[in-house]
Amino acid sequence: MALTIIKSHLNNTHYLVNFQQNSTRRNQNTRIQTKHIFHFNSLQHFINLSMKKSLSSSSSSSSLIKSSLIDPDGGPLVDLVVPENEKALKKKEAESMPKLKLSKIDLEWVHVISEGWANPLKGFMREDEYLQSMHFNFLRLNDGNIVNMSLPIVLAIDDKDKETIGLSSDVGLIAPDGNLIAILRSVQIYKHNKEERIARIWGTTAPGLPYVEEVITPAGNWLIGGDLEVLEPIKYNDGLDHYRLSPRELRKEFDKRQADAVFAFQLRNPVHNGHALLMNDTRRRLLEMGYKNPILLLHPLGGFVKADDVPLDVRMEQHSKVLEDGVLDPETTIVAIFPSPMHYAGPTEVQWHAKARINAGANFYIVGRDPAGMSHPTEKRDLYDPDHGKKVLSMAPGLEKLNILPFKVYEIYFNHQVRLSCHPNYICL
Amino acid sequence: MALTIIKSHLNNTHYLVNFQQNSTRRNQNTRIQTKHIFHFNSLQHFINLSMKKSLSSSSSSSSLIKSSLIDPDGGPLVDLVVPENEKALKKKEAESMPKLKLSKIDLEWVHVISEGWANPLKGFMREDEYLQSMHFNFLRLNDGNIVNMSLPIVLAIDDKDKETIGLSSDVGLIAPDGNLIAILRSVQIYKHNKEERIARIWGTTAPGLPYVEEVITPAGNWLIGGDLEVLEPIKYNDGLDHYRLSPRELRKEFDKRQADAVFAFQLRNPVHNGHALLMNDTRRRLLEMGYKNPILLLHPLGGFVKADDVPLDVRMEQHSKVLEDGVLDPETTIVAIFPSPMHYAGPTEVQWHAKARINAGANFYIVGRDPAGMSHPTEKRDLYDPDHGKKVLSMAPGLEKLNILPFKVYEIYFNHQVRLSCHPNYICL
Repeated sequence: MALTIIKSHLNNTHYLVNFQQNSTRRNQNTRIQTKHIFHFNSLQHFINLSMKKSLSSSSSSSSLIKSSLIDPDGGPLVDLVVPENEKALKKKEAESMPKLKLSKIDLEWVHVISEGWANPLKGFMREDEYLQSMHFNFLRLNDGNIVNMSLPIVLAIDDKDKETIGLSSDVGLIAPDGNLIAILRSVQIYKHNKEERIARIWGTTAPGLPYVEEVITPAGNWLIGGDLEVLEPIKYNDGLDHYRLSPRELRKEFDKRQADAVFAFQLRNPVHNGHALLMNDTRRRLLEMGYKNPILLLHPLGGFVKADDVPLDVRMEQHSKVLEDGVLDPETTIVAIFPSPMHYAGPTEVQWHAKARINAGANFYIVGRDPAGMSHPTEKRDLYDPDHGKKVLSMAPGLEKLNILPFKVYEIYFNHQVRLSCHPNYICL
Repeated sequence: MALTIIKSHLNNTHYLVNFQQNSTRRNQNTRIQTKHIFHFNSLQHFINLSMKKSLSSSSSSSSLIKSSLIDPDGGPLVDLVVPENEKALKKKEAESMPKLKLSKIDLEWVHVISEGWANPLKGFMREDEYLQSMHFNFLRLNDGNIVNMSLPIVLAIDDKDKETIGLSSDVGLIAPDGNLIAILRSVQIYKHNKEERIARIWGTTAPGLPYVEEVITPAGNWLIGGDLEVLEPIKYNDGLDHYRLSPRELRKEFDKRQADAVFAFQLRNPVHNGHALLMNDTRRRLLEMGYKNPILLLHPLGGFVKADDVPLDVRMEQHSKVLEDGVLDPETTIVAIFPSPMHYAGPTEVQWHAKARINAGANFYIVGRDPAGMSHPTEKRDLYDPDHGKKVLSMAPGLEKLNILPFKVYEIYFNHQVRLSCHPNYICL
């Protein structure tokens, strides 16, 4: 659920203060009931074991601590960017290939795939992967193991594109700026049943879903899957590229800081007081559990968001101020951009958000009320049951190794109106 | 896909002959291309192993053959019918419980659950099970193993029912005839988001889906889960109850016949020539693979079907004639009724059809074009890609132990019109 009260674009942390004052004022007229639901999922057992292990070995092995606390999904992180010495040849080769023009959001997905956020996915999904993702929210690997994959990561093409490609097995991908950015190898073209995709991923076909309107409705009736070879690392030249750390770079940074736990916090809005309290509280709890150096990955989403979400540059400036002002400790916090576009697909999408952070080295994931949710586009209600996100996440296939941290919620009752859509006194993501 | 050309209600096997003549006539004007797609899924390896095992041990261990060729899902088969000596006490106890009136289709589900078709499910789903089924098509058991469960098996109640139940943990279930039929224990009531359920299960929310219109649209906005205690075995008194063999009874029959392979064939329409050829051909192939006594489970669906499907009594009479006439060999065929209602939910539902047959002892499952599919209710096309059913089935979680047999399809081209919705020369289920 978007923090809908933030309509103005913030450029400093005054909001934190204002929020607190506002919240205090409101509270004078409300009955606050604190319900302690900060608890760990069924992996408490695992956590306890880790804690014991960590405690027993801490004196002797602190120099051995690695952030490789959690393996990437399905094997080593993919790196689909072509080595420098092969680029010229690949570019030459691509000249004779049929070409596809990518949209801005297609390019965001190329970015996501190329760095291993969707590990072990090596390109846009072929039909078998698409079907598994849509029906089961996981992919089965050749070794029989599964990895979570709740969102189909697909590239749509229209009839004309299909005709252009013909029987060619490789296709050149052109970025919106006109440059050849990647090659898609051994392609497979299959039908894009938009209605089915929308219904199965969002649990509704109501008009007004932001990603559907922006991406799916205008798209063609075919999907093209294949293996990606990316010719240049994806850059946005918006002054924020230094925040766009890849999973590999993040893991390196966690190693450098000798993290023995990494807890990720996904958000797509400014940090407010509740978030800050929560993140600090989580660190305190991890320390209490025996971890010596838990590192926070404050990880705003940087891809497509709906029009009324706060723009990325504004959010990044605010996050940066939060650290400068010491609300969060810069020593134990890494702020980086998660390059994925946003689906607003609630319980289905939150799995993607969590899975991608495994690949970046996070072994704890904080989940709040109605993660990745929004209001129903045509009815006056939340699109998803606000509790389903954390429930589905805690049961999701392939995420067993991740520790899910549902967070403390202060339930506020205004004249018996129990549920308020992301009221400021809720902590909403 | 329903065999839509059968509009008249058949009461003998003349259809078989008529169909053949009709088909022959049509073929004079068509170009028939036979595409051999009878193949085994990735379990070919397993089959080969079984075959070798079967061959190597056949001389010495034939007397030991058991139809327990495949274990029921998730442990021993449940039997939720209360023992005779406890009935009076349970009935007495239920007198003071709040009561819920079941619909005809609710009762079919009680039947399904009570006999272990949905093993190891012990009652109507609680929310955790509902969410897993809807999002992942499987249930995770306490031991960490999973079982396939692609359809939510749920009981809907309305606001008034919810109020009546209040805080009671047990509820009496009343059959449509007014008799107390079961007790639902330790109930949990949770929200029934119909739109989400329909979208995720059917991949569309278009009006006109038979099960949705019959069951979901008129249902209440709550679901109630709990453990079932069934006070009387479910009987329909329609002259067909002797066909309604439970999974336990079927397994016993397979044992009696010393089956070393059981191949199940789901259908909801009369057996036509193509079906018969297919079933005989499958047996022949299993014999070629080294099985000594493959038994066919010809297993028509007996629960709710849409208005234009052929009624059950007509179908059963036709099936019976097929055996009498020797089109199928009665020695190696068991005809029984599968008591489930039909969702017409294509790739999602075919998993349920296959999973239920595991519980009945089948280790081979025949799957055709567009299983459990239908025409799109508002558009002129199949609701599902006709190939998705077998693809999804072959990748479905929890069905790895089942051998999937996609069957031979004769593709017929009429003036370049490649795909015809279940033309008589296709073999359609």
